[in-house]
Amino acid sequence: MAKRKMILDLDTGIDDAMAIAYAVGAPDVDLIGIISSYGNVLMPKAADNSLRILELLGATDVPVFLGEPHSSTTEHFEVMAISEQIHGANGIGDVDLPEPQRQVESQSGVDFLIDAVHQYGNDLTLVPTGPLTNLAAALKKAPDIATTIGNVTLMGGALTVPGNVSHFAEANINQDAEAANAVFTSNLPLTMVGLDVTLRTLLTKTETQQWRDLKTTAGAKFADIVDYYIGAYEITSPHLHGCALHDPLAVGVALDPSFVSTIDLNMFVQAEDVDYGRTIGDPARLNDPTNVKVAVNVERQRYLQTFMTYLTTLFKQH
Amino acid sequence: MAKRKMILDLDTGIDDAMAIAYAVGAPDVDLIGIISSYGNVLMPKAADNSLRILELLGATDVPVFLGEPHSSTTEHFEVMAISEQIHGANGIGDVDLPEPQRQVESQSGVDFLIDAVHQYGNDLTLVPTGPLTNLAAALKKAPDIATTIGNVTLMGGALTVPGNVSHFAEANINQDAEAANAVFTSNLPLTMVGLDVTLRTLLTKTETQQWRDLKTTAGAKFADIVDYYIGAYEITSPHLHGCALHDPLAVGVALDPSFVSTIDLNMFVQAEDVDYGRTIGDPARLNDPTNVKVAVNVERQRYLQTFMTYLTTLFKQH
Repeated sequence: MAKRKMILDLDTGIDDAMAIAYAVGAPDVDLIGIISSYGNVLMPKAADNSLRILELLGATDVPVFLGEPHSSTTEHFEVMAISEQIHGANGIGDVDLPEPQRQVESQSGVDFLIDAVHQYGNDLTLVPTGPLTNLAAALKKAPDIATTIGNVTLMGGALTVPGNVSHFAEANINQDAEAANAVFTSNLPLTMVGLDVTLRTLLTKTETQQWRDLKTTAGAKFADIVDYYIGAYEITSPHLHGCALHDPLAVGVALDPSFVSTIDLNMFVQAEDVDYGRTIGDPARLNDPTNVKVAVNVERQRYLQTFMTYLTTLFKQH
Repeated sequence: MAKRKMILDLDTGIDDAMAIAYAVGAPDVDLIGIISSYGNVLMPKAADNSLRILELLGATDVPVFLGEPHSSTTEHFEVMAISEQIHGANGIGDVDLPEPQRQVESQSGVDFLIDAVHQYGNDLTLVPTGPLTNLAAALKKAPDIATTIGNVTLMGGALTVPGNVSHFAEANINQDAEAANAVFTSNLPLTMVGLDVTLRTLLTKTETQQWRDLKTTAGAKFADIVDYYIGAYEITSPHLHGCALHDPLAVGVALDPSFVSTIDLNMFVQAEDVDYGRTIGDPARLNDPTNVKVAVNVERQRYLQTFMTYLTTLFKQH
């Protein structure tokens, strides 16, 4: 099977951890690196969490790079209280994982991304599941990557439903609407996997119990981590009856776009005013060729089955 | 050809006038009545304009009914300055049409609608192109119509693009968000033809010149009326390079849904706060059976060709 070169750009958090597991467990991925971002946790902690999760899964050949520590318009970042409530103070449900044996790479994540696009071009897929700050910085430094990268499938935004940090803004986009706008209005071939579909794709303790029943370290630890997340959702979003598979859905769609139905749209990101962070169609470019595919519906049963197959098979071995 | 029973609910305005022409000109419509609404003009003036347009088109067998004169939450309505700028002080581009020979019906528009649903049920299509006040009033008085009417195809709302009276609200919905919310959250089988598609469906003076060249009264009058509208768009929306066929597109989609592609979504209308009038998906009902089809793209060339065939053929005869 031809494997897809993939880079993840993560603010590793709980659903980011599941995104790593999906990418490591999928048979058709060559995960060439993880770039670290700020958001669910501070950027260095996200890198540390990625290293710990990779070691838990036996994927110690995947390099981890440091990204930007804060948004393109600020000098500082602090984790929001709601992020800590959802992901735990350590970002992975306050579950203890061993100190990582490996260190982060010395090259910056932005340079790693640019080099990888130059090396792999159309064969490379980038999956950002945090703020779009790293990608916007890479675009600014090397604008040619917009037309040479194969695909960017991002978790972020909300088009047909309200946001989750305001009526308008989804959390990742809200961290850096300016960077997001630079990404959306570029020529990058984007697929937006936003709240429109991730809120339809839910995991419950029925599934995490299957991981626990494996009696492996990875199974037990992931069950503990994700149960923390499900518990947070029971408080913040009781109407959903489960936790949203935000970030692993983006990885799944990057590998198999047929999990979702999409609409083609030219979009911009509102970067000021009360609707800061809103991802919305650009009325001035409605009849122009489009660069964004927005996922608006999902085959959630088929996706969930694939998700469980990949993760359970992986957890069984570790 | 089996003709579809249709009722229009109009705040007759210029694009409403084109909606009348489309319905009168379409070979597969039995236009059984027009209900009058407030919006582009005052409600009684909308009825007067409908009568004048019907007479211009020789359709003197279509009864016109008075609807609600103001929103469900106010006691009064005044035409907005922007409406007058776009439609003219008389609502039809300040073009003079003869005093109507006929009068409005004595039955209320709301009762007419209820009776028609009871009489025709699934064979009846309602096309509201103004505020949803009349439909909400009918629903309140006779809730059974939600499940017995064939279809409601409305012009209003904006899902994938910003609104036109605020970043969030489209003008029709903005007039009475409470009524719109009652309609969207009912069991009515709705098709939403909003700014998402109407801003992609544009008419220019190239087309109105074809009407003028017919050398008929209807052709000349409609060219004058619509040129006023195109002129207003040149000032308010110069990036569009034409005027939007809002209301006649809704009639077209009601007759031939294949003009648009739609997504299925359960929606609500925000009826308070800064995003008053926003039409958006309901996160709590994302995985439930849906009652709204939202048009998100349109075969504009095919629609425009049909529009021109129907209107030109009609104008040739009057």
